[in-house]
Amino acid sequence: MVNGVERPLDLLNNSKGKEVLVHLKGDKQIVGTLLAFDIHINLVLDNTKEMKDNEVKRNIGLTFLRGDTIIFISPASTTLKKE
Amino acid sequence: MVNGVERPLDLLNNSKGKEVLVHLKGDKQIVGTLLAFDIHINLVLDNTKEMKDNEVKRNIGLTFLRGDTIIFISPASTTLKKE
Amino acid sequence: MVNGVERPLDLLNNSKGKEVLVHLKGDKQIVGTLLAFDIHINLVLDNTKEMKDNEVKRNIGLTFLRGDTIIFISPASTTLKKE
Amino acid sequence: MVNGVERPLDLLNNSKGKEVLVHLKGDKQIVGTLLAFDIHINLVLDNTKEMKDNEVKRNIGLTFLRGDTIIFISPASTTLKKE
Amino acid sequence: MVNGVERPLDLLNNSKGKEVLVHLKGDKQIVGTLLAFDIHINLVLDNTKEMKDNEVKRNIGLTFLRGDTIIFISPASTTLKKE
Amino acid sequence: MVNGVERPLDLLNNSKGKEVLVHLKGDKQIVGTLLAFDIHINLVLDNTKEMKDNEVKRNIGLTFLRGDTIIFISPASTTLKKE
Amino acid sequence: MVNGVERPLDLLNNSKGKEVLVHLKGDKQIVGTLLAFDIHINLVLDNTKEMKDNEVKRNIGLTFLRGDTIIFISPASTTLKKE
Repeated sequence: MVNGVERPLDLLNNSKGKEVLVHLKGDKQIVGTLLAFDIHINLVLDNTKEMKDNEVKRNIGLTFLRGDTIIFISPASTTLKKE
Repeated sequence: MVNGVERPLDLLNNSKGKEVLVHLKGDKQIVGTLLAFDIHINLVLDNTKEMKDNEVKRNIGLTFLRGDTIIFISPASTTLKKE
Repeated sequence: MVNGVERPLDLLNNSKGKEVLVHLKGDKQIVGTLLAFDIHINLVLDNTKEMKDNEVKRNIGLTFLRGDTIIFISPASTTLKKE
Repeated sequence: MVNGVERPLDLLNNSKGKEVLVHLKGDKQIVGTLLAFDIHINLVLDNTKEMKDNEVKRNIGLTFLRGDTIIFISPASTTLKKE
Repeated sequence: MVNGVERPLDLLNNSKGKEVLVHLKGDKQIVGTLLAFDIHINLVLDNTKEMKDNEVKRNIGLTFLRGDTIIFISPASTTLKKE
Repeated sequence: MVNGVERPLDLLNNSKGKEVLVHLKGDKQIVGTLLAFDIHINLVLDNTKEMKDNEVKRNIGLTFLRGDTIIFISPASTTLKKE
Repeated sequence: MVNGVERPLDLLNNSKGKEVLVHLKGDKQIVGTLLAFDIHINLVLDNTKEMKDNEVKRNIGLTFLRGDTIIFISPASTTLKKE
């Protein structure tokens, strides 16, 4: 078990204050520091950047993201580090 | 932590009376002053403008926006100011 | 604050009896006099007109509009009058 | 106020036994006599006709229509009679 | 009033044991004998046939149909018999 | 009445341990032995096969299928046996 | 009956700590070790990989997957082993 993740929301809780990669429907990708979330998976991110082909397309600063459009959320520190 | 944002709706509360950028499904972008919101993320904006390629496409004044079509909401003051 | 709009539905309440512009999913636009609404944002409009490129495409008289397909609702009097 | 329409469902109630035009998602149009409706806006129509370009495409008689696919419902008597 | 249809589900109740035409999203058409339904408009049909251009495309026998994809349901006996 | 199917879920209950054909949105077809289901029409199938043009495209063994994407479910034994 | 799967979620419970194949809407495929799930079928996977044509397209490490976009989930050990 990784860091005591027993329920899905535990992972979001462990990721607060850390950078996360958020993949939205329509293949939109967002990177930012997770400040807050709720049970609808609505998120608040800081230093938010819209990414395209691994490059920053636009800085959108502090952002409220509706959970409804999210496909997955991954702590950036774990991305690209696993086999 | 930024301005005590503990729950996602705190960011919307802090943004009342300020200009926000709202990104809708179908890549529609709206800018306006946030007057009110509810738990469904329905918004009321004033001085609302529909944007296209960073230019004002249409002024739609006072507007009720259904939360259902919203992807993200970002206080305009934080956009383009971060690293 | 504009006319005491504290919750999103206040704007709809203030707009009763007035002409509103309703933008639907699929870029359909409707103009009519707001007679009634409920918490699902179902609306009843009178003198309803389907618009296309700012011209009346069809008169549909008294109409029940399901909230589910609505993107935004704007009192016509405020449209095009702001900055 | 038109015929005491205070809540959206009042219009449907006033339209029972009358011909209504129903516009569905995907630009499908249905005309029929409204026999019954419920809070999900499920309808039963009689003498139902699928329309295309103002012509009858198919007669489908007595029909149960799921509310979920409806965009708007308009009493046929009011359509085309207003300015 | 037709056969005492006061609520939409009354029509489905009256159609039990009879052949119905079911029109699904994506213009799929199904014909079969209605055996059962619930409040989600989930149906069980017997002798179910998938239709295309008024011809039988495939026999699928006894079938559970999820209500979510249904646009309308019409008793086959009433189809094509009305004005 | 066929095998006492009074409510739609009765058909799923009668089909436990038997092979079923599941038609998903996007015209995906799945065949497998029904092991379990719940009220959301989530299914567990065993010996699951993804089909394409009546040929096995991929074996996916034991599988949890979300009800949300299902259009219809038909016991394989009844398919192709009816008039 | 396979391993006492009486309700759909039993299969997810039996798959904890094991590799699963997750097929998402839009034909996206994800492989990873199932750490946690909830009744909305939100998942946490570890060692998550986005697959394309049976090859690893991207490693995304520890990941929160929203249930809403999932079509099916299959324990990897059973995939390709059944006739």
